[in-house]
Order: sequence, then C-alpha cells, then structure tokens
Amino acid sequence: MIIMQPGATREQISTVIDRVHANRMEAHTNVGTRQTIIGVVGDRHNVPADQFESLPNVQSVEPVLKSYELASRQFHPENSVFSLGGFTIGGDEIPVIAGPCSVESRQQILETAQAVKEAGANALRGGVFKPRQSPYSFQGLGEEGLEYMAEARALTGLPLVVEVMAESQLPLMSKYVDMLQIGARNMQNYSLLRAVGETHIPVLLKRGLSATIDDLLNAAEYILFGGNNRVVLCERGIRTFETATRNTTDINAIPVLKSLSHLPVVLDPSHSTGHTSFVSAVAKAAVAAGADGIIVEVHPDPEHAFSDGQQSLKPEEFARLVKQVKAVAEAVDRTLVPEETPFFPNGVING
Amino acid sequence: MIIMQPGATREQISTVIDRVHANRMEAHTNVGTRQTIIGVVGDRHNVPADQFESLPNVQSVEPVLKSYELASRQFHPENSVFSLGGFTIGGDEIPVIAGPCSVESRQQILETAQAVKEAGANALRGGVFKPRQSPYSFQGLGEEGLEYMAEARALTGLPLVVEVMAESQLPLMSKYVDMLQIGARNMQNYSLLRAVGETHIPVLLKRGLSATIDDLLNAAEYILFGGNNRVVLCERGIRTFETATRNTTDINAIPVLKSLSHLPVVLDPSHSTGHTSFVSAVAKAAVAAGADGIIVEVHPDPEHAFSDGQQSLKPEEFARLVKQVKAVAEAVDRTLVPEETPFFPNGVING
Amino acid sequence: MIIMQPGATREQISTVIDRVHANRMEAHTNVGTRQTIIGVVGDRHNVPADQFESLPNVQSVEPVLKSYELASRQFHPENSVFSLGGFTIGGDEIPVIAGPCSVESRQQILETAQAVKEAGANALRGGVFKPRQSPYSFQGLGEEGLEYMAEARALTGLPLVVEVMAESQLPLMSKYVDMLQIGARNMQNYSLLRAVGETHIPVLLKRGLSATIDDLLNAAEYILFGGNNRVVLCERGIRTFETATRNTTDINAIPVLKSLSHLPVVLDPSHSTGHTSFVSAVAKAAVAAGADGIIVEVHPDPEHAFSDGQQSLKPEEFARLVKQVKAVAEAVDRTLVPEETPFFPNGVING
Amino acid sequence: MIIMQPGATREQISTVIDRVHANRMEAHTNVGTRQTIIGVVGDRHNVPADQFESLPNVQSVEPVLKSYELASRQFHPENSVFSLGGFTIGGDEIPVIAGPCSVESRQQILETAQAVKEAGANALRGGVFKPRQSPYSFQGLGEEGLEYMAEARALTGLPLVVEVMAESQLPLMSKYVDMLQIGARNMQNYSLLRAVGETHIPVLLKRGLSATIDDLLNAAEYILFGGNNRVVLCERGIRTFETATRNTTDINAIPVLKSLSHLPVVLDPSHSTGHTSFVSAVAKAAVAAGADGIIVEVHPDPEHAFSDGQQSLKPEEFARLVKQVKAVAEAVDRTLVPEETPFFPNGVING
Repeated sequence: MIIMQPGATREQISTVIDRVHANRMEAHTNVGTRQTIIGVVGDRHNVPADQFESLPNVQSVEPVLKSYELASRQFHPENSVFSLGGFTIGGDEIPVIAGPCSVESRQQILETAQAVKEAGANALRGGVFKPRQSPYSFQGLGEEGLEYMAEARALTGLPLVVEVMAESQLPLMSKYVDMLQIGARNMQNYSLLRAVGETHIPVLLKRGLSATIDDLLNAAEYILFGGNNRVVLCERGIRTFETATRNTTDINAIPVLKSLSHLPVVLDPSHSTGHTSFVSAVAKAAVAAGADGIIVEVHPDPEHAFSDGQQSLKPEEFARLVKQVKAVAEAVDRTLVPEETPFFPNGVING
Repeated sequence: MIIMQPGATREQISTVIDRVHANRMEAHTNVGTRQTIIGVVGDRHNVPADQFESLPNVQSVEPVLKSYELASRQFHPENSVFSLGGFTIGGDEIPVIAGPCSVESRQQILETAQAVKEAGANALRGGVFKPRQSPYSFQGLGEEGLEYMAEARALTGLPLVVEVMAESQLPLMSKYVDMLQIGARNMQNYSLLRAVGETHIPVLLKRGLSATIDDLLNAAEYILFGGNNRVVLCERGIRTFETATRNTTDINAIPVLKSLSHLPVVLDPSHSTGHTSFVSAVAKAAVAAGADGIIVEVHPDPEHAFSDGQQSLKPEEFARLVKQVKAVAEAVDRTLVPEETPFFPNGVING
Repeated sequence: MIIMQPGATREQISTVIDRVHANRMEAHTNVGTRQTIIGVVGDRHNVPADQFESLPNVQSVEPVLKSYELASRQFHPENSVFSLGGFTIGGDEIPVIAGPCSVESRQQILETAQAVKEAGANALRGGVFKPRQSPYSFQGLGEEGLEYMAEARALTGLPLVVEVMAESQLPLMSKYVDMLQIGARNMQNYSLLRAVGETHIPVLLKRGLSATIDDLLNAAEYILFGGNNRVVLCERGIRTFETATRNTTDINAIPVLKSLSHLPVVLDPSHSTGHTSFVSAVAKAAVAAGADGIIVEVHPDPEHAFSDGQQSLKPEEFARLVKQVKAVAEAVDRTLVPEETPFFPNGVING
Repeated sequence: MIIMQPGATREQISTVIDRVHANRMEAHTNVGTRQTIIGVVGDRHNVPADQFESLPNVQSVEPVLKSYELASRQFHPENSVFSLGGFTIGGDEIPVIAGPCSVESRQQILETAQAVKEAGANALRGGVFKPRQSPYSFQGLGEEGLEYMAEARALTGLPLVVEVMAESQLPLMSKYVDMLQIGARNMQNYSLLRAVGETHIPVLLKRGLSATIDDLLNAAEYILFGGNNRVVLCERGIRTFETATRNTTDINAIPVLKSLSHLPVVLDPSHSTGHTSFVSAVAKAAVAAGADGIIVEVHPDPEHAFSDGQQSLKPEEFARLVKQVKAVAEAVDRTLVPEETPFFPNGVING
C-alpha cells in the first residue's frame, strides 16, 4: 500500500502506478479528501518497497495488515458512500430496504411495493431465484418475477434488490435489477463473486451462516478486486447452538465491520431472528449500533407466503417499525432517507 | 397453573392454596393488577385438574408450556419491577451498573466509584472473588475487597453488585452486598442457585457461555423456586466460532427473554464484545432492543488492570457512553434513572 | 413413495410410473433385492394416495418423512455401492483417497501420486481450481493442472478426484476427472449442484462448515434429483468455538448419515483437524465409526506447500496411517481395497 | 519449571525445592523414569531464573508455555497411569465404566451392576445428586442412593464413580465413592475444583458444554494444584449448531489432549451423541483415536428411566458394544482391562 503526500500531482501518482504495472501487479487508487492511497495487489514477494519509496511525493509504503486490502479501512480511511436509486448509502442517511422473500405473483409484489413505499421504504427486495434447502420447495418465478419487479419499480420508484444465484443469471439480472444480492449460501462462491465484481451493479453481500467477519471482508475483496467498488456488507445472523431464534444476530459485527472496513453495513433482522415478534427490536438495535441500513421482509399475507412467512411483517407492522427506527436513528445523530427522494431509473444508477 | 377470576377473594385464593398443599405440591402466588395466578410446582402427575376447576372463582387451570413456570410470562403477565438501592429495575427507568472487573485496592475502587457516580452510574460492580481460568491468575481480594466496596458505597451512595462463587461465601457476602451476581461459569451450579434462592438479596444471573435461553430461564427458576423473586437476567455474550470479538452478543436474547419472561433483562457489553471500541455501540443496541439496564466495566487505568483491561472503559469514555445511551433510551420512550435518586442503605434494600 | 409388492412385474411398475407422470411428477425407481420402491418427486399437494394404492401389486404408499427423499434410507433401504476406477465404495471395502491440496507442478503431482500409490492409496486427489479465502492466494493451475493429473493417472492407475468450483468448469473437468468434488463452501451452491446432477460423473460432496446433517442430505438430493446417483458424502469438520484445531470433526455424523441415508460416507481428517499430528488418530476413528472411506492430504514437502502444508502428511507418515487404518478396518469386519485392483480408465468409469 | 539432570540426588532436589519455598512459591515434583522435573507455581514475576540454574545438577529452567503447568505434558512427559479399584487407567489397559444415569432404586442399581459386570464393565457409574435443567425434574436419591451403590459394589466388586455437585456433599461422598465425577455444568465451578483437589479421591473431570480444550486443562490444573493428581479428563460432547445429535462429539479432543497433557482421557459416547443407535460407533471411534477409557450409560429398562433413557443402552446392547470395542482396542495395540481383575475396597483405593 503506497501512501502519497497530500500535495502529490496526478502525474506523480501515474508514475507510481506505472511502476506498479511494471512489476506485474495491479494498482487500485483511492483518491481521498486529504491524500491518495494506492493499493497494490498481486504477487508482492519479490518487489522491494524502496523502489516505490524513492519516487517523488511518495509519503510511505505500508504493509497490508489483513489478507484483504481494498475492503480495509487502512486503504480507504473514509466511509464509502455511494448512491443507489437517488439516495445514498454509507453516509448519514439510513435507507430501509423492504419486500417479500419471494416474488409470488404480479399482484403480491405490486401490492407489497406500494405498501412498503407508503410506510417509508427506499428500495424493494424480492427473490426470483430462490436458494432453497430442498429441491422440492418453491424455487422462484425467474424472469417472470423480474418483470413484475420492474413493474413495481415503475409504479413506486423504488429501486430493486434481487438475489443472483449463478453467473449464468447475470445477463438477465443486469437488465432489471438495481442492486444484486449475494445470498449467505453463496458468500464463498468465488466464481460468482468474481463475476459480479466485473459488473457495475451495486452488490449487497450477505454474510455466510458460519462465515467469520474476516471471511466476509475477504469475500468483499473478490468483488472489489474485479473493479466493482459499490459493495454493501450485510449481517443476517450466524449459526450457533441457540435454537430459540432462527439465527443469532451478531450485533457486534456492526461496529467491528465499521472499524475494519469503509464499506456500508446493513442488517437483516428478519433472517437474523426468524420471528416477526423480534424483528423490530433488532432493527432498532442495528441502527443504534451504527448500521447504515436495514433490510426487512414484508408480505401482505404472511400466513400464506410461499417462504419465510414466519419472519415476514405485515405492512402495518412494518410501518410501525419504520417510525421506531427513525427515532433511534435520530438519537444517534442520523436520519432515515427523506421520504421524497427523486428516483433515478436503472440505467442511470448502474452507469 | 391456576387462574383465579378477577373478583376472587383472599379466602377463595386460600382455599385453592390449601388444596394445592393437600396434594403435596407448592403454591407460588402472583397477585396481578387484574387477577391472581397461582403457580403450582411439584409432582403434578397424579393430580387431576378438575379438582381445582370446581373450586369457587377459579377461572381455569392451564398447563405450563415450558419446563420453568415462575420465571414465565404465562405465570406473571406483567413485567417484574423491583427496587435496588432506591431506584427500580424492570420498569421505564433504565439503571446503569458500572465498575471494575476486580477490586484491586482501596484507592482504585474509591476512585472508580466516584468517577462512575459522576458519569451517571446507579450501582457499583466489582469482584472480590474472581473465577479465573487459571489458578495462577489474580483471584480477588476477598473480604478486604468487600470492605473497600462498602466504603465506596458510603462515599457515593451506589449500591453494590458483587459476584458470589460459592455457597460458603454467602454469609460474608450478605453482610456487604446489595445484589449478588451469579457468574456465567456458575449459571448451572444448582447448589449455588438454590442457596441464593433462599436469601432475600436481589440476584443478577449471568447467562452461561453456551447456555440456551431456555437453560437461563430454568436456572432463574431454581432461584425463584426458593422464594427469592428479585432476579435480573443478564446477557453477556455467548461462545460461537467468531473470533473477532471475545464473545458474540446475542442481541436477539433481549426481545426473546422479554417475551418469555417477566424478569428484567440487562446486557453486559463489556464481556459480550471484549474490546473497549465496541462497548458503546453494543450498549446502545441493548437499550434500543429493550434491555432494562446495562452493566459496564470501568477502570481508571485499564492498561494496568489486573483483569479485563482490554474491555474496560476509562471514566471519560464511560461518561460519553452514558450520554449516548440516554439519547437512545429516550428514543424508545424510556429514561435512564434520574441522577438524584436517594440512596437506601443495604439493610433496607435487602429487607 | 410407492412400495411395490416383492413379486411386482416390470409392467406393473411401468404402470405406476406412467400414473406418476400423468400427475406431472417425476418417478425415481430403486430396484432393491427384495422389492422395488418408487420415489415420487414434484408437487404432491393435490394428488390423492389412493389412486396409486389401487394399482396392481402396489404394497403401500408411504409419506416421506424428511425434506429429501432420494437420499433417504427410507427410499433405498440397502447401502448404495458403486464403482470408482475399478474398486467399489459403499460396500465392505474401504478406499483411501490421497494427494496434495493443490496441484503445484508436474513433478510434485507425479511424485506424490507414485508415493501414495505405493503407500496404498486407491485414488488421487488434487485441486486445480482453488477456493481460497483471499483473492491474492494461489488460485490453482487450471487446465495445466488437469493435464498433470491425467499424466499421474496414466502413471499410477489411480482415478482422479478434483474439485469443481463453477458450472463453467464442468466441460473441461469432465474430460479429465473420475470424480467431481463439491467443496464445503459450495455445498449450497444449488446451481452447481444441479449442474453436476446432470453429469454422469461420481460426486464427492463435502459438508459445509456450518451445514447441518439435514442440509447435507438436501444438497445431495439436488444432485440425485438430476439423475446422478453416484454421490459420496464427506464429513470434513464443522465450525465451532474450539480453536485448538482448524475445525471440529463431527464423528457423530458418520453413524447418523449411515442411518438416515444409503449413500457412502467418507471422512477428511486433514481438514477436520488441520494438523498433521491429529490426522492419523481421526482417520482411525472414522473407520471405527463406520466410514466408507477416507480422504487425506499428502505432500512430498509440506513445509513448502502452496496451501494446507500444516495439515499435509509426508508420504512416509501416510504409509503408516494406511497400515493403522487397515488394522482398524479389520477390527470392524471390513477391509481396505486390496492393493492389486485393476484400473478402468476414465471413459469406462463414467459410463 | 526446573529440569534436573538425570543423575540428580534427592538432596540436590531438596535444595531446589527449598529455594522455591524461600521465594514463597510452591513446588510440585514429577519424578520421571529418566529425570525429575519440578513445577514451580505461584507468583513468578520477581524471581530470576538464574538463582535456580546455578544450583547443583539443575539442567535448565524452562518457561511454561501454557497457563496450566501441572497438567501439561511439558511438566510430565510420560503418561500418568494410576490405579482405580485394582485396574489402572492411562496405561495400555482400557477400562470401561458403565451404569445408569441416576440411581433410581435398590433393585435397579443392583440389577444394572450385575449386568454391566457380566458384560465386561470395570467400574459402575450412577448419579445420586443430579444437576437437572429444571428444579422440577428428578433430583436424585441422595445418601439413600449411595447406600445402594455401596451394596452394588459389595456384590460385584466394581468401584464406584459418582458425580459431586457441591463442596458440601464431599464429606458424605468420600465415605462411599471411589471416583468423584465433576459434571460438565460444574467444570468451571472453581470452589468445587479446589475442594476436590484437597481430597485424595480420583476425579473424573467432564468437559463443559462450551469449554475449550484449554479451559478443560486449566480446570484440571485447579485440582492438581491442590495436590490431587489422579485426574481423568472426559470428553462428553460440545454444543454446536448441529441438532441431529444431543451434542457434537469432539473426537479431535482425544489426540489433542493426549498431546498437551499426560492425564488419561476417556470419552462418554452416551452424552456426546444422545441416542443409543450412535453410542457404539462413537465408543469404537474413541478407542481408535486413542482414548484411555469409555464411560457408557446402561439401564435395564431405558424406556422407563427417570433420566437419559434415550441414550441408555440395554445390558445386551452394552455387551455387544464391549466386544466391538475390544476388537478395536486390539487393532490399536491396546487391550480392555482383563475380566478377572481383583477388587481393592474403597479405603485402599483412596489411600
């Protein structure tokens, strides 16, 4: 990692990058408000640091302390803030993503989209390819579901967050979605991580059921390394011995991730608790602990949901949750995304 | 569990209790604001419910759904609220307990007590018998430490919370302390639980490192069964695969415990994270999630603490934490205990 | 699940299968030594059992007790036994699979192949696409590695077990390998599971780091459902709080899997312990507990291995392990695969 | 830790010990076959090593690498072998301990004792004080149970292994039992550990449900530090996310404990699996992995057992287990304890 002096010129930075390339390594540049940091990735074994230290306006060459680099706060000391559908994530404003586990029908998703929009949601989630434990469970509507999602976006202005399960789904997905979700079971599907790293679509990367925080940041590194730097980390509960809840929300992960990384961190209290009665308490806890957003499952008729009904809020419950979360956000000197945020369509966001 | 009609008289209640005793079982009575519930504990196998149902003003006989009964919200639908040193726990007011891991010297504890008092603490913690992993680590000052603690109480008015490790320590402890702490390693030391159940001293019962929520409530049941109903449950982190933090804070446990039990629930963010940099975020999360209190390690000189230095806040860091937690408490329609709460000395509290 | 009478004719079985298809479901047939069982998969909600029970020689229609069916012992009461490179797995003979974590060079793999062959191995493992936590770690030699593996097979007669990480690697893999390995991180990569389910290449399915036994059997179901019924389950350690070893070998999983499923079960003591000094003890334990095989990492020079050196045995250590495992196998009335097992080349095995 | 030269005299050793005492520390001496090692415990901070190194025939002063010392193999390089009721544990012979979870009645324990004796057991287990999750479950027969146990010993010659739950039970226990069991829930009940450390009764120390191997060895250190060096370590399964079995048998713990410590290690497959159908497989695995003994729950009528019926073998199942374990023991060059081992009564054993 090469730290430039505050006053380093573009030309001097280019010289350093050229030298990196000459050593058959890649350079990732973080232009900070104070100074520029150049992350050097590749085989560093035979490259002496002093050939960089002697270049003009190089302040220092620092060793990377973790196995990941681009995801680290050492490389990027300021919070990453980026836009998604007109609002930003990673800054003071906290977006709320909501929607059903699965898109089940046109009516279901349109109804849910309008309800969550009214309740204060800023983006719409909904799965169309579902990673189900059993091959005999509902596997999702596929492209048909994407079309309904697109219609819901047209109706409400909410950008779309949809899980991608395979590299082969990417061409289709990229026509419709505003943010790709990598599910917990695919967090270490490195082929998929590389593939989404080569797109320019923002990514919501869910922590694996037994992934350490270190594993999660290395998974993010695969995406960042491909050139896609709009990655949001998502805590969604880990597997422990406790059976009173579906998973154990690792609330510690929020301040730990914020200290180790510059990437935005959101929490999914629906999966991390697995029961509607605990979702709201844990959503508030997340924001109090410093989360940059929450993602919540909402269904107009949870009892008849095809999947995850037990953990899906009804729209009116979700509306109450948003109000409560808003109060907590303000107590920690942040705000929810203001209601009237203009919508930028898919093409613009992903550009 | 026998539910009386709202208008049942004392005499009718007595009749039911006599019938319980006649069946060689014990009756624990919860006089609620609306109606009285009689918990029946003992060997229920051969006792038909109908001999109670036919008694005057018995509304219904309900099966107990859990292996614990007195700790359940089914038995005691309203929150348990009880006083500790002049303030209450379990109601709207949220007390903050603070102090060092171990009492190390007279000066250390007096200094800390004053500092945490000024910063807004409502009770003083400090160990004098320490359950250390190795027999060669500092084991605590014993009675000398209790004397310093008593002096700190006299100076500040803060009631004392001290861990008891063995039944044999109880006579000594009961002369000094206002609240007995059962540590995580002793959560299933049933002999000790029974012994503290026979005192009238309030108990802070810490969840074991791998105790399920069900285990914790059954451990509380041992204490309640002995007649001591001032039990506070304490989440202090569980053991998981994650190594970035000392333990994993099970934030889910807060709403789950509040739904299953009427007992107050506090969180110990110092042990549940293990690092000072994460204590404040998790303390705020606890209160946002519905905790009835927090217990925080504070040391005037953490770098030279005999134990737990890595997770102990400096007094000024603790003061900031209290301010932040206060804001969150208000966002969820609660308050911290007001600063000028009169102090009731040990004898009165424990009476 | 439809159980035919012992004497049912082919024609009667066909009639049942036709009826299944007429209900838009799929039939998987298990022709047992005593009677035939027809597994019915698909949407069973609206299909009454009695329309099958009345068909000739149908003994009974039984509900499926688990979310998986084809993987269950209920569907296939006898052990699945199938051939891999001339020997069988799942029967009395216990094969030993050995080789390096990664193929590093032509010389390394040829040397290792000969050494493990001499020591008694029956198949050669070696990764050419490596799922590494960090994108900056060695990622494998790719096709070059497969060519070296093929050369090692030609030299030693050992069939090849190689991990596949992505659907896109399958066409290449299928030209070279005798058994596809699905790694722990991809155990719930359902797209990949479906894709290997459509090949006819035997599969070694590794349990995920926090996958339950139920998860593992459902993952196997995805492969079986595609028509590929040569699936071997592999316990390779799970994530727990214990840090003295890399993972915790779930030895219970062996008898549990053998009772729930008919599929062969192998254990990987290299990953499940993470340290060479414990590999041999756990390999013996696996065979004593009923494992149908073991898979062991062996490297000619572990200290300089590109990956997993800490857990790789030297060839002479491996030779000792094989002798010890042989003695334990005989104590539980089984044998290792006899040394002079003729080799069937790739095309034949996969046919 | 002070290593004496092989030829050091008693007098020279005494000189070293006197010097240790002069520094207000304690000396624990291990007289090995080759040389004597003196473990020094206490506050070592201000004691320079060179004042010992210069004494006659001191070979070297070595730092202790772990937080425990007397339990470490560094201090005691050879296996600890000690007698229990006529046979030895820790050497080549593998004892089998068996009996019911709880002593329920005179008839039940006498019948079980004879049955397990005939099937090949070498010691009798049976709880009289039971640490039950709920205060309303059967809590054991207390002294009455001990009297029945003593009668069973008189009848069969089997020494008795009984759990002690509290320091206050020790005087009673020491009149009856040949080996004290510390249960999993009390593994870090340090007051109890210290108390049993001051007896001369052998101790079976069970690993806590979430205790690391390091925790277990430190718990053993508390007992050894008190002067009682007949401690047997017992793996009985740990808590993980897996729910197919009651606990997860950490089979790795066996070779890990044998490498870190000189103490005998036994496995309890009844608790570590929780289901009779898996006990035998895991018992064999334990012996294959190097366990020095097994402890198994046996009940004449498991379906009506007061506790742990699901995991208790019937006598005939236990007899089959013993035969199978015997074959595995021989495969790893060990034997079960020969059937006709003379019995030494309680007083002698504990002397």
